[in-house]
Amino acid sequence: MERLRAGDPRALARAISTVENRAPGWADLLKSLFAHTGHARILGLTGAPGAGKSTLVDQLAKHYRKENRSVGIIAVDPTSPYTGGAILGDRIRMQDHFSDPGIYIRSMATRGSLGGLSRTTADVATVLDASGRDLIMIETVGVGQDEVDIVRLADITVVILVPGMGDDVQTIKAGIMEIADIFVINKSDREGAERVEREIRALQSLAVRSDHWTPPIVKTVASEGVGTEDLAKAIAGYEVYLQKDNLALKRSVENWQQRIVEMLREAMLEQAREHISDGNLKKYAAEVAEHKRDPYSLVEGIVDKLGKR
Amino acid sequence: MERLRAGDPRALARAISTVENRAPGWADLLKSLFAHTGHARILGLTGAPGAGKSTLVDQLAKHYRKENRSVGIIAVDPTSPYTGGAILGDRIRMQDHFSDPGIYIRSMATRGSLGGLSRTTADVATVLDASGRDLIMIETVGVGQDEVDIVRLADITVVILVPGMGDDVQTIKAGIMEIADIFVINKSDREGAERVEREIRALQSLAVRSDHWTPPIVKTVASEGVGTEDLAKAIAGYEVYLQKDNLALKRSVENWQQRIVEMLREAMLEQAREHISDGNLKKYAAEVAEHKRDPYSLVEGIVDKLGKR
Repeated sequence: MERLRAGDPRALARAISTVENRAPGWADLLKSLFAHTGHARILGLTGAPGAGKSTLVDQLAKHYRKENRSVGIIAVDPTSPYTGGAILGDRIRMQDHFSDPGIYIRSMATRGSLGGLSRTTADVATVLDASGRDLIMIETVGVGQDEVDIVRLADITVVILVPGMGDDVQTIKAGIMEIADIFVINKSDREGAERVEREIRALQSLAVRSDHWTPPIVKTVASEGVGTEDLAKAIAGYEVYLQKDNLALKRSVENWQQRIVEMLREAMLEQAREHISDGNLKKYAAEVAEHKRDPYSLVEGIVDKLGKR
Repeated sequence: MERLRAGDPRALARAISTVENRAPGWADLLKSLFAHTGHARILGLTGAPGAGKSTLVDQLAKHYRKENRSVGIIAVDPTSPYTGGAILGDRIRMQDHFSDPGIYIRSMATRGSLGGLSRTTADVATVLDASGRDLIMIETVGVGQDEVDIVRLADITVVILVPGMGDDVQTIKAGIMEIADIFVINKSDREGAERVEREIRALQSLAVRSDHWTPPIVKTVASEGVGTEDLAKAIAGYEVYLQKDNLALKRSVENWQQRIVEMLREAMLEQAREHISDGNLKKYAAEVAEHKRDPYSLVEGIVDKLGKR
């Protein structure tokens, strides 16, 4: 605990693994760490594959290091639940920052864990927060529900778009309009950047956010470091805005409502799983697959039995 | 029930809405429908935004209609849980097939429902199956855990790639290698199609599937109908393969293990939610957000209380 709070990267890595793998003591660890959280600012960055998220996150990390703020990065990887995701990415990326203990990078795979990816990501963010990191960046691919849940953990959400991603981009943009606090058009030296900007503006004119914030649009070429300063400024601008009317706290309360329900779901499922052995589950699944048993009545029966216990 | 099983599209639409919205009677409806399922072949199609999924699915639907097989399409949309997703897509697409009751299209948004998207999609597939559809196509954007879960429902999974989607495609491919039964390179008239094919081959040479199937690679230009026949042939080929060694049943048993756990999770959460009023949840969330209460002990306490009830 002491070494973790002092920022020792090895203690940090061990604590994160404990939480990620639900190793013995994980819940007690989180309980005792929670009192030391609340200091870190959490930034969520999301975008389609190929949008250049990691490059942008690396650039931002370097920027914040110049301001002497310590950074933790959680890179959520969309690897298959089957392979469990052997992740080389963070090792390769770490080399770039190897000499700087002020940057810590951790990749998370979708392990199909009981807790679900967004729950585990939240818990890892708690550990990083307690370790004294000033800034936590969570980068996540994609537009699925899982990604939306992950991004919702963040105090500030940055949505990264790139020109020329095809017609479906329009659909996505409509979907993420309300989670984006800041838009980035990366690879903005490519053809079509203006069009993407026009489309965002058009969508923004259709719907006003309940907090009346108009997400700014920042153009970057992350691979060349262009626009990173502008993005950092936009982030700082939103941070100032969050202080008004206690918006940051309001958002945090909303997030916690969601998270408490998710945590409850996990805890309840764990209880239920204790009452179905793996063998039983396999047997039930086989009976359902062969249409000898209807799964809806099966689950109802298990829950009823638990309630009566 | 009778009208639904006779294929009446209005009865079908009503049943799907009941299930999707968890309207009164949804569980009983599914229980009684389950006995009539197992006939439909379920095809999952996934790919990045802009990969041309809907066009490809529409082409396939037309192909199967020529063979007189009835088709149900579930288009899973990555819209925000906030907006609830006003979906015009299926209406626009339906116009194309308007005169043909043999094609039914339903778009699903991520409504942030209790059940979760993959659970709800599975239930909607059950309704379509019971309604006598020969083929159900589930199309879903993206590479998130949610999408993987959805695709896992399918008997046959088709992964759609397009040339020129940037470097991250490599990462995704590694992630989806094991869920793809068939690869499609759509927009294959574009530059880079050969490279994508080489990359898939290279990845395939690294890992052999446990069922020893080597996913074929089909090149299409869906917007012009090119390659649809080849894709249908590849799908038929895998269907034949699935008959061997009871592979289809094995896969179904595995899927049901996952689904039963998901269903259990939902049911347990519902039970838990009954014991926390919305007002209480808000109060708890505020206390946690202000760091007056640690969420881990809070959830443990609620679960303990439920157990002792």
